[in-house]
Amino acid sequence: MKLCTFTADGVTRTGIVVDDTVVETGVLGSMIDLIRDWDRLKPELETRAASGGGVPLASVRLEAPVQRPGKIFAIGLNYADHIAESGLGTPERQVWFTKAQTSVNAPYDPILIARGTMTPDYEAELVAVIGQGGKHIVAADASAAIFGYCVGNDVTERMWQHAVPQWSLGKSFDTHAPMGPWIVTADELGDPHDLGIRCYVNGEERQSSNTGHLVYNVWQQVEHLSVGMTLEPGDCLFTGTPGGIGAAMNPRQFLKPGDVVRTEIDRLGAIEGIMVAED
Amino acid sequence: MKLCTFTADGVTRTGIVVDDTVVETGVLGSMIDLIRDWDRLKPELETRAASGGGVPLASVRLEAPVQRPGKIFAIGLNYADHIAESGLGTPERQVWFTKAQTSVNAPYDPILIARGTMTPDYEAELVAVIGQGGKHIVAADASAAIFGYCVGNDVTERMWQHAVPQWSLGKSFDTHAPMGPWIVTADELGDPHDLGIRCYVNGEERQSSNTGHLVYNVWQQVEHLSVGMTLEPGDCLFTGTPGGIGAAMNPRQFLKPGDVVRTEIDRLGAIEGIMVAED
Repeated sequence: MKLCTFTADGVTRTGIVVDDTVVETGVLGSMIDLIRDWDRLKPELETRAASGGGVPLASVRLEAPVQRPGKIFAIGLNYADHIAESGLGTPERQVWFTKAQTSVNAPYDPILIARGTMTPDYEAELVAVIGQGGKHIVAADASAAIFGYCVGNDVTERMWQHAVPQWSLGKSFDTHAPMGPWIVTADELGDPHDLGIRCYVNGEERQSSNTGHLVYNVWQQVEHLSVGMTLEPGDCLFTGTPGGIGAAMNPRQFLKPGDVVRTEIDRLGAIEGIMVAED
Repeated sequence: MKLCTFTADGVTRTGIVVDDTVVETGVLGSMIDLIRDWDRLKPELETRAASGGGVPLASVRLEAPVQRPGKIFAIGLNYADHIAESGLGTPERQVWFTKAQTSVNAPYDPILIARGTMTPDYEAELVAVIGQGGKHIVAADASAAIFGYCVGNDVTERMWQHAVPQWSLGKSFDTHAPMGPWIVTADELGDPHDLGIRCYVNGEERQSSNTGHLVYNVWQQVEHLSVGMTLEPGDCLFTGTPGGIGAAMNPRQFLKPGDVVRTEIDRLGAIEGIMVAED
């Protein structure tokens, strides 16, 4: 199933994407509420999806599937070619930072270049959305802890990221976590480790890889994070970006006002936003 | 005014602490809802507080004042003596990391030593709770962006903190952000930069300093964070810890099951928890 958060007639709610239409789920609350109650809701939503009666996708505004994740953790240096371009060795352990929940952005919304900053960069990423979650989840059981997957762009203010040793603030600027266009549920997607992933700037391909090249796969990521921390419904994991970031080009290329950044992943869809200088 | 979140008769709600009693605010929702509507609510709550009729503080369970902050940012290396004991120089810029909202802990609750970990450490900190918040807040206006202050302990799993260059995961273990016992509003507290701050383990003083020794004061912190990121009602800023952490003692002293950790700040109160090994 493909599940989205959308706004129509001034009301934001959750929906099921069926071909080119959106069928309301009828679930009260946000995507997080839906995920919490998924086991009970699933048969009912399957019936709804089959009965049709949706409105055209083009007639609604798609929001980030999870508008306010309780937490967003993102792994660094998790594709070999990105590690190489960063001039670093493969980390002996998983390196995680965070993105603020206020950085979430709708899949087709503009991405802000914050006033006084000049080095925004893209990072195409597969995003895993936690289902029931939990703690002390071993890798062998991790697939059951995930609700679904979507496309993400771990937009980064490079100067702010590297001005200090800690990355989380430079990764947390407003609008710097576009996600969407919807969540493909884990049962529909199957193994998330064989998906082409690409990023384009103004139509020019900048990143192209496959999630099969993750250094630490999604199951290992869930195991590592849940050693000390309870993962909860709707938490989002940005699972790493492949090589090709603007900061590693020669010469360096940062995003400029008017640039259009498109991130796409096989079987999940694409998100796209225009860069806009903040007033 | 002193504002708390408390549970009595199985219901969690917000309250006003008046001497040794708690008066219900009558506000629907959480502390974040109260903060959002503070300008309108304040006169009404002052009247309630003056009319008495509270229940004994000892008869209720105090929760963290903000149980689910949208974000928790924490600054590292922000007292000269802590910088010295860490063997580092004063950072040229503010160094921020994060704590997950799932790490929040009630002020007197046990603090978990996660299964398989052995290096939990304390960090007494003044916590600033954001009021209306905003973006691009300059230091001169920052005091108006803060709702109030409470006591925090930035409990840290040291091995996990230092196993990788990014600290946020080692700072985000469940129960590792005890806060409380209540929020003293900014208008009641006045300047937060002249408060004694102390931490005790089993009654032995381990940290003792004054918030006047912050390298970057609270106003500068608000300015820096809000360059790229919107601060929102209830967001929590851990403002740095003074010297005296267990990891810098000779020999190193980490917290052990049964240890009682008390953190106190002048005019704000004290929080205290016993260390418990997770099953």
